[in-house]
Amino acid sequence: MRNNLYFLVVGVVLATSAGATISATNAQPLETRVATASSLGQKALNDPAAFDFVESLTTEIGQRLAGTEAHKRAVAWAEAKLKAAGFENVHSEPFNLRAWIRGAESADIVGSVPQHLAVTTLGGSVATDANGVEAEIAVFRTYDELLAAAPGSLNGKIAVVTQRMVRVQDGSGYGAASRIRRSGPSEAAKRGAVAYLLRSLGTDNHRLPHTGALDYQEGAPQIPAAALSVPDAEQLERLAARGPVRIRLLLTPTVKENAASWNVVGEIKGAERPDETVLIGGHLDSWDLGTGATDDGAGVAIAFGAARLIAALPQRPGRTIRVVLFGAEEMDFSGAAYAQAHEGEAGNIVVAAEADFGARNVLSVQLPPGAAGSDFARALQQTIAPLGAIFDSRPALFGGDDVRGLQKAGVPVAALRQDGLDYFDTHHTADDTLDKIDPKQLDQAVAVWSVFTYLAAASDVDFRNLAPPPK
Amino acid sequence: MRNNLYFLVVGVVLATSAGATISATNAQPLETRVATASSLGQKALNDPAAFDFVESLTTEIGQRLAGTEAHKRAVAWAEAKLKAAGFENVHSEPFNLRAWIRGAESADIVGSVPQHLAVTTLGGSVATDANGVEAEIAVFRTYDELLAAAPGSLNGKIAVVTQRMVRVQDGSGYGAASRIRRSGPSEAAKRGAVAYLLRSLGTDNHRLPHTGALDYQEGAPQIPAAALSVPDAEQLERLAARGPVRIRLLLTPTVKENAASWNVVGEIKGAERPDETVLIGGHLDSWDLGTGATDDGAGVAIAFGAARLIAALPQRPGRTIRVVLFGAEEMDFSGAAYAQAHEGEAGNIVVAAEADFGARNVLSVQLPPGAAGSDFARALQQTIAPLGAIFDSRPALFGGDDVRGLQKAGVPVAALRQDGLDYFDTHHTADDTLDKIDPKQLDQAVAVWSVFTYLAAASDVDFRNLAPPPK
Repeated sequence: MRNNLYFLVVGVVLATSAGATISATNAQPLETRVATASSLGQKALNDPAAFDFVESLTTEIGQRLAGTEAHKRAVAWAEAKLKAAGFENVHSEPFNLRAWIRGAESADIVGSVPQHLAVTTLGGSVATDANGVEAEIAVFRTYDELLAAAPGSLNGKIAVVTQRMVRVQDGSGYGAASRIRRSGPSEAAKRGAVAYLLRSLGTDNHRLPHTGALDYQEGAPQIPAAALSVPDAEQLERLAARGPVRIRLLLTPTVKENAASWNVVGEIKGAERPDETVLIGGHLDSWDLGTGATDDGAGVAIAFGAARLIAALPQRPGRTIRVVLFGAEEMDFSGAAYAQAHEGEAGNIVVAAEADFGARNVLSVQLPPGAAGSDFARALQQTIAPLGAIFDSRPALFGGDDVRGLQKAGVPVAALRQDGLDYFDTHHTADDTLDKIDPKQLDQAVAVWSVFTYLAAASDVDFRNLAPPPK
Repeated sequence: MRNNLYFLVVGVVLATSAGATISATNAQPLETRVATASSLGQKALNDPAAFDFVESLTTEIGQRLAGTEAHKRAVAWAEAKLKAAGFENVHSEPFNLRAWIRGAESADIVGSVPQHLAVTTLGGSVATDANGVEAEIAVFRTYDELLAAAPGSLNGKIAVVTQRMVRVQDGSGYGAASRIRRSGPSEAAKRGAVAYLLRSLGTDNHRLPHTGALDYQEGAPQIPAAALSVPDAEQLERLAARGPVRIRLLLTPTVKENAASWNVVGEIKGAERPDETVLIGGHLDSWDLGTGATDDGAGVAIAFGAARLIAALPQRPGRTIRVVLFGAEEMDFSGAAYAQAHEGEAGNIVVAAEADFGARNVLSVQLPPGAAGSDFARALQQTIAPLGAIFDSRPALFGGDDVRGLQKAGVPVAALRQDGLDYFDTHHTADDTLDKIDPKQLDQAVAVWSVFTYLAAASDVDFRNLAPPPK
């Protein structure tokens, strides 16, 4: 059924892209490369390697927050997996981070009608006193209402922001809401609040709060901050509408300065121009509440699975494929560390892309600015169409948190956009576990990644010097 | 759209039941009663009272496990609500129970790859030692495999049963699986196990385990027992397939002997034969993890909402409608207590039914044996059809846990069967919160209950003496 549909789609696309050629000088003829890419994609649809990879990671390691022993175990595990799969130059590149470790966490409505609330500490939050902090809450139904509150108006209170995150397939709902988590604690503190709670940035309604990092602003008092599960945030809205509500909040996270993490690297060396690199990856670290299946076990599995299929080809592509399993994405350390360590090499990185948006199928691919209308784009379009993915002619503005540093250094990025409609149901929660991955959808993502990666590595496309598409 | 569909349906049903009459002697003419019932049903579809009731209960009281202060607050709350709504003879009937109170609960895989597991203690479970119990696990993928294990074969082990519960709309999947939770602890103990874990009896895959009562068998050692969330049970299956797994389990529940609970009662006195009673209800107690919205805030709201609409009619039905909000269903005390206290009155109870299957719409109604083919059944059928519910000619075998005692004493029971397809996604978990209730579906359930209750109270049907339907 699905495959029949694919054949119909590819027929149309081939018709509209007839005569397309990649302007390769050293590479194989277009037809050969497109045929190889197509066969890679089809092979990926029935290759269990990526699912096995994330199954092993989430089962044998589980959670792997950067800076913990579990993450260290994951690094050793990943090196072994890359070596066993035939990757070359497998190694781990160390960097330091300020590791943040969750402690106890609880929140309770106190008074004559006590109730327990489901909360989780935000990454980077300071601790409460050992006995917790108890105060009346001030509820804001939108973040802008909090920002409109006068300095001093929250003195001695726990600020609670209950703004809803909007479910958007491409993740833009999360982008729009992230300031509520990132900046909210400092904005509340500047207005006198003693602690901060937000409605989880999530699209589910389970009693499983969503963690994630905060950013304290310089000069603002650092107050403890946590996320409420969605039902608990709604409960507080209802209770606050009835009268004053007091909460006791206990959070006891700790910090490990100068902790170690590693970006794990493995390569498929290019046959002709090994210094030119196509960099793909995901992040090996995860939040500590679940087992990091969709965030980002799936992403590292996709990059691993795609590169592994290319390594198994009878003829290697001309350029090197480098897989990087980043080591501290969740607390924002690994991308910057990688970019800093590879500053001098940035000019040789043809393109970079990170899989960090779950385990569902890739809907569309965006290329660096100027690539739409290019021979490369047409070859990509015709090869991913049978897989159920479209070429999106808008330029890729974001290639993943861990390649942002490279992008700043001039490296072109691509975006392989997955279906994220339910990604934020489990994102950063205890619910991010293996059962949330549909192996068939994961395989489709591997297929599109393998096609993209192969075509980039087998061509001599230079995304830095492509002409803009004709107007 | 929905209403148009209803009109089509009612047309068909009226055609097939043309000429039906209820063989009433003292009651109003059939057409009048059917018209009143139909108008009650339509009114219920737009009556916010039931949703407001469960909103207030879950917001202002929250969890209300029998024997706790919270349940005591719920009893006072319920009496006040019934009085304010104009119910008569509002009172609470006390009974004693052995109250079971949850303590700390945790489970962790220990050894070189520690992992945290989401568990919750089964109701009635004994505690572990203060330091917990640590042992290797023995995993059984079906309960029958555990039963087939030889005595002594589980010595010193923690038995883990991971059998899946099947999702069936009518709840029979739960019925079939309940022995795994009820009897599993004693069966494991008889074979030497030191503790017992089961895959939650639930149809979701969230990290929110499902609690529920166990039944220790006489003569078997009493071992601590808990439910794993579904993803955790699957994680243990995968890990156990790789090698030995050790778990440390800590459960510290306590027991309060001779605790107090109450069945809360309110009546709409009958205009003609007030001694004849139509008894409807739900249970006011809830498990302690969530706020008892669908189990059974919805049920008490449905019974309340249906009776309240009938109370507001210009002319009362002939028989008394008694609403009972039972006070300890989850630990199996309130139904027996009620039946015992009302033994002498059983002959005057025309019919009894409990709403205890969530907040979704009623799909079908079953009447006591012999009622199919009766005038009452035909009147019911034609009145509930516009609401999207069918008359199911199979006899009601089960009317709810709290009316089982009455049923044993000879009281006929009816079953108003709701859509339970997702009921066991949140049943007995922290996720049983108000947001899981769709007010429109709740209103439909109230509508069908109001029709059924009114027709039973306005007729002189005697379910004990109805002829069996013609073969």
